[in-house]
Amino acid sequence: MNLGGFILLKIGINGYGTIGRRLAHAIAKQDDMKVVGAAKTRPDFKAMDAVNRGVPLYCSVPGNESKFKEAGMELAGSLEDLLSSIDLVIDCAPSKMGLENKALYEKHGLKMMFQGGEKSSTAEVSFNAQNNYADAIGKQSVRVVSCNTTGLARTLGDVRTLSDTGKVRTVMVRRAADPGQSNKGPINAIKPTPEMPSHHGPDLKTVIPGINIMSIAFAVSSTLMHSHAIMAELAEPLDRETILNKFRENPRVRVYRVADGFKTTAEVMEHAKDLGRDMSDMYEIIVWDECLNVSEDGKELYYMQAVHQESDVVPENIDCIRALGGIESDPLKSMEKTNKTLGVGAGL
Amino acid sequence: MNLGGFILLKIGINGYGTIGRRLAHAIAKQDDMKVVGAAKTRPDFKAMDAVNRGVPLYCSVPGNESKFKEAGMELAGSLEDLLSSIDLVIDCAPSKMGLENKALYEKHGLKMMFQGGEKSSTAEVSFNAQNNYADAIGKQSVRVVSCNTTGLARTLGDVRTLSDTGKVRTVMVRRAADPGQSNKGPINAIKPTPEMPSHHGPDLKTVIPGINIMSIAFAVSSTLMHSHAIMAELAEPLDRETILNKFRENPRVRVYRVADGFKTTAEVMEHAKDLGRDMSDMYEIIVWDECLNVSEDGKELYYMQAVHQESDVVPENIDCIRALGGIESDPLKSMEKTNKTLGVGAGL
Amino acid sequence: MNLGGFILLKIGINGYGTIGRRLAHAIAKQDDMKVVGAAKTRPDFKAMDAVNRGVPLYCSVPGNESKFKEAGMELAGSLEDLLSSIDLVIDCAPSKMGLENKALYEKHGLKMMFQGGEKSSTAEVSFNAQNNYADAIGKQSVRVVSCNTTGLARTLGDVRTLSDTGKVRTVMVRRAADPGQSNKGPINAIKPTPEMPSHHGPDLKTVIPGINIMSIAFAVSSTLMHSHAIMAELAEPLDRETILNKFRENPRVRVYRVADGFKTTAEVMEHAKDLGRDMSDMYEIIVWDECLNVSEDGKELYYMQAVHQESDVVPENIDCIRALGGIESDPLKSMEKTNKTLGVGAGL
Amino acid sequence: MNLGGFILLKIGINGYGTIGRRLAHAIAKQDDMKVVGAAKTRPDFKAMDAVNRGVPLYCSVPGNESKFKEAGMELAGSLEDLLSSIDLVIDCAPSKMGLENKALYEKHGLKMMFQGGEKSSTAEVSFNAQNNYADAIGKQSVRVVSCNTTGLARTLGDVRTLSDTGKVRTVMVRRAADPGQSNKGPINAIKPTPEMPSHHGPDLKTVIPGINIMSIAFAVSSTLMHSHAIMAELAEPLDRETILNKFRENPRVRVYRVADGFKTTAEVMEHAKDLGRDMSDMYEIIVWDECLNVSEDGKELYYMQAVHQESDVVPENIDCIRALGGIESDPLKSMEKTNKTLGVGAGL
Repeated sequence: MNLGGFILLKIGINGYGTIGRRLAHAIAKQDDMKVVGAAKTRPDFKAMDAVNRGVPLYCSVPGNESKFKEAGMELAGSLEDLLSSIDLVIDCAPSKMGLENKALYEKHGLKMMFQGGEKSSTAEVSFNAQNNYADAIGKQSVRVVSCNTTGLARTLGDVRTLSDTGKVRTVMVRRAADPGQSNKGPINAIKPTPEMPSHHGPDLKTVIPGINIMSIAFAVSSTLMHSHAIMAELAEPLDRETILNKFRENPRVRVYRVADGFKTTAEVMEHAKDLGRDMSDMYEIIVWDECLNVSEDGKELYYMQAVHQESDVVPENIDCIRALGGIESDPLKSMEKTNKTLGVGAGL
Repeated sequence: MNLGGFILLKIGINGYGTIGRRLAHAIAKQDDMKVVGAAKTRPDFKAMDAVNRGVPLYCSVPGNESKFKEAGMELAGSLEDLLSSIDLVIDCAPSKMGLENKALYEKHGLKMMFQGGEKSSTAEVSFNAQNNYADAIGKQSVRVVSCNTTGLARTLGDVRTLSDTGKVRTVMVRRAADPGQSNKGPINAIKPTPEMPSHHGPDLKTVIPGINIMSIAFAVSSTLMHSHAIMAELAEPLDRETILNKFRENPRVRVYRVADGFKTTAEVMEHAKDLGRDMSDMYEIIVWDECLNVSEDGKELYYMQAVHQESDVVPENIDCIRALGGIESDPLKSMEKTNKTLGVGAGL
Repeated sequence: MNLGGFILLKIGINGYGTIGRRLAHAIAKQDDMKVVGAAKTRPDFKAMDAVNRGVPLYCSVPGNESKFKEAGMELAGSLEDLLSSIDLVIDCAPSKMGLENKALYEKHGLKMMFQGGEKSSTAEVSFNAQNNYADAIGKQSVRVVSCNTTGLARTLGDVRTLSDTGKVRTVMVRRAADPGQSNKGPINAIKPTPEMPSHHGPDLKTVIPGINIMSIAFAVSSTLMHSHAIMAELAEPLDRETILNKFRENPRVRVYRVADGFKTTAEVMEHAKDLGRDMSDMYEIIVWDECLNVSEDGKELYYMQAVHQESDVVPENIDCIRALGGIESDPLKSMEKTNKTLGVGAGL
Repeated sequence: MNLGGFILLKIGINGYGTIGRRLAHAIAKQDDMKVVGAAKTRPDFKAMDAVNRGVPLYCSVPGNESKFKEAGMELAGSLEDLLSSIDLVIDCAPSKMGLENKALYEKHGLKMMFQGGEKSSTAEVSFNAQNNYADAIGKQSVRVVSCNTTGLARTLGDVRTLSDTGKVRTVMVRRAADPGQSNKGPINAIKPTPEMPSHHGPDLKTVIPGINIMSIAFAVSSTLMHSHAIMAELAEPLDRETILNKFRENPRVRVYRVADGFKTTAEVMEHAKDLGRDMSDMYEIIVWDECLNVSEDGKELYYMQAVHQESDVVPENIDCIRALGGIESDPLKSMEKTNKTLGVGAGL
């Protein structure tokens, strides 16, 4: 059902890095929204992706226009020019800059989307399609929760449709840098996150209110995926197969077997290349079959999952656009459309 | 010009890992050749790629048929069944197994292609499209040289069209494992290759006879690309721009700038994702603009390049099929067709 | 109190790698035991350490004697020769080989010590000095639990002196190779351990009977230390300082602050070099001050710790020799002596 | 011969990190010099090393005194206080800060030593004990060349005693961070150094004037050692054994065999732990026996070596103190004394 919103929602993307590029590619596959342009600070190879894909480029740092010219990239205007031409802005600037940018977006009276690197207070509501799609409808600003929180929200959201959860404990083993980042370490170390709980637990409550969760995090010398160990007390006893089947039914979760060669996150991302998606992404949360167990009494669940930090929020952002933009009020219809257009849940 | 060979060359792929999968995907984009099937030892996730792509699967280890059945993968037959149905076999088995397989291929009277992991003596001739395409015509067996040798052959082949080379010295900094391999190290070390010259130098002579080259190799804790430092004495003095322009004209070489963000191999492979190729591959050899210099007298050239170990040989294999299979006698026509179908040289 | 055992216990070490070397060095600092010799399979640089330190070398693979001779290393005899000359053998062979070696040790009527890579059933009892020293007294065979289990035993053993524990959940982030190992990966991946619980939980019960523990493990691309996240339900409410003080009182545990620069395991092991111990080892378990918290009701404890996989069992082995060898019946006296001779608990 | 300099040279160390700590430890082993104190900016765990070793601590950042107090570390005064009490200052501040500090040192009329991270113009002369010890005598300021340059200077210096060299080409594979650094990457990449020649070649000329050298550098995901491939044209034909024997005679160079287990830099640094030196350092340059070869005509030499970036300059600094401080005019006497006190050239 169309909520009486914009016919073809005009979208601007501020920031064209890991997430911005992916969203531009994903929106291009939708028939109910359109990217008007993307703003970038510098003319590096990521800016060239916009050029190659026909996404009009805007310069977000006044004074840097000449650098784009020198690099042979034509500009469509400034960030303010872009903001004047759109209905909705997606902030994809580096973490913590979204809050700084907000006043500018408000000045232009825009609907605003922020990413999970921002504090939850930056927007009226936080978002995960499967758990609280409706909360974004009619709002002016929404924040799509981070990749890790999205990963927790999908599988724990599924579990909670089967049984209420008691205390949930999770330990996150985070990749310390993205594959395209060469300046960040560690090269050879394990890094504990001093904040306890790490921000992931409290963040999950923004999309699954009332969940009782403790989260602890490490960062490690890897670039491929985050991994989680999740231990959840269950109000109702469940068995292993019931839970695995629930996950298998969710197009945004995949159950993979170590026995099929998925020994580590390396093989999971290698397999993603076979699937032929944009940027060889893995939108789905991967749960390892052999690494899911329930206690003998069925009252505690243990499982291990992996999250492709660069892409699992891509379908969530597309859904969020539909909810925030007033395009679709039915979460299932939005998610189905997103899944179909991006290939989520398809293949293998 | 068609050499009077097979109308639609029927190809079998023995081994469906890093190279085998890529070749199946690449051949599917050609109109003058066809994959009849691929043989695999085990039903892991790579075998599932064949299923997903409609490539008939054959079992290469007698006795393993039931494992495929258990994994829900239908088999079209045994390796021998596959070999009976084709004109040309591409051996993509692990290094050194090609020689073992050769007798079987000969028994079936097949044209045979081997990869660079085999010794050069395994086939009648070694192959690099740009340098010795014609040598493969009319042969029964050909070996496509390895990723590193291919990288050297492309750029040094280009240089030698501008000036004869005196002594060439190269130091290879090899990635120690592929991105999808989790069992190999080192995690934190630099490993010298005790063989001196490393096999790359002598191997280059199989496709550029007479070149005077010394090669030294290290392996390092990375999975993304090999890198080379190349120092070539020049018979005729050249200048930097002449050489860079030569490289820029070669669709299988790209000149990238550190200043555009290509600080390391990580950014290069990140950018490959933007290009939208199969498996996010980078078929071209990357030469860093800032890292190419000539001595004051123009008589010595220094440059640094990176090689995507998993894919630079893919276009070479397609060309090799055309030469060995008698489909096309003109190297340029074959390369142009391969480049066009795979997108080599396009984008950015 | 001397138990009437051997005056100067004669010890043989079978295997001279990561643990064997360290034990030879540590025993050399004791006045109540003596290394008669060490057996090795091959004359590599680790064997040279025995030569340099004056530890007689024995060849454990019949037929390899000539290799030692070629390498210029004098042999004192065969493994059987060594076993004939000692009172107690410490098996430091690679994991799972201890069980194979056991019959030979029994043939010589020796007291036997095994390491944590062996199954607990290999010996009559498993050992951790702080928790069950007395169990080893009078036995013929004892197994010192692994580095990870030792780490859990020390800190959870301390916690349990303050309050009984309910369910304990722990997630281990394991280094995938030792610093001196260059063949093992992964280079860039996170690897879940499919066994759930991982062997660490059940193993802990061999030295702390009755503890209710679930353990989950990942392996990561690091060589420096294992890290643990530990979540323990407490029967009696405790506060943060009480627990930290308990740890501070234990010479085999250290409480370090992120604020002092201990951001990761890298800085911890860098600091170990300042302490001037043998092989720059860190015998103590490191608990990060900022990463220890209790829930508001004081009934659940969360903390993060790091374990130097190569050395935390060294003092445990020395104590085990005293218990098994009948040298000392008082755990505290043995531990105090071990700590003093090795410098455990000293410095900073 | 004593040059009529200071009886017991009073030394201050400004900066107490990787190099500063090691120099304090090394000077403590000498009988002709003395550390008066070390200045540090912050009270982290490295400052604690000074406390533990009885090195008086001075605060080099006015205003930070209270932080030391809070951390329980007593201060002996300010940096200026330290500078007023000494004869010679060794600047061990982070790269490029030495030049900033120089005016302050001059104000106090001090003899000054800088490290290789500074430009050569910072001091009157650059220093390598083996090659130009005498140049430092009678100077006011000297710079000890960097770890990589020291590695080149030792082995190429040796080679040049056997034969003049023609063009020397070297490719450096640099570790991207030190073992105790957790913030620097790359985690998974190879990084070319855009400067060509890299600074190492020109830097070598400051201690071996007239050498004709080209250097090219990569940085890689490792923390253990730098590695070099060196290709040197020889004026006089040499054979392999002559060169290896020359290296074997140099106490500051070691020839190790892959066959003895030294497969990578990991095993080399593992072995360093066996040698029992301060901080498990490897002061010597490691040349791999199997990786040294000469061309058939004996006119070109190829070899591969590894450099412990944290410690190979330690003995050079000690010698430099003697030359600059007027303690000893004979290079051989100084080097012999340094080697003996630090254990350079001993063991294995």
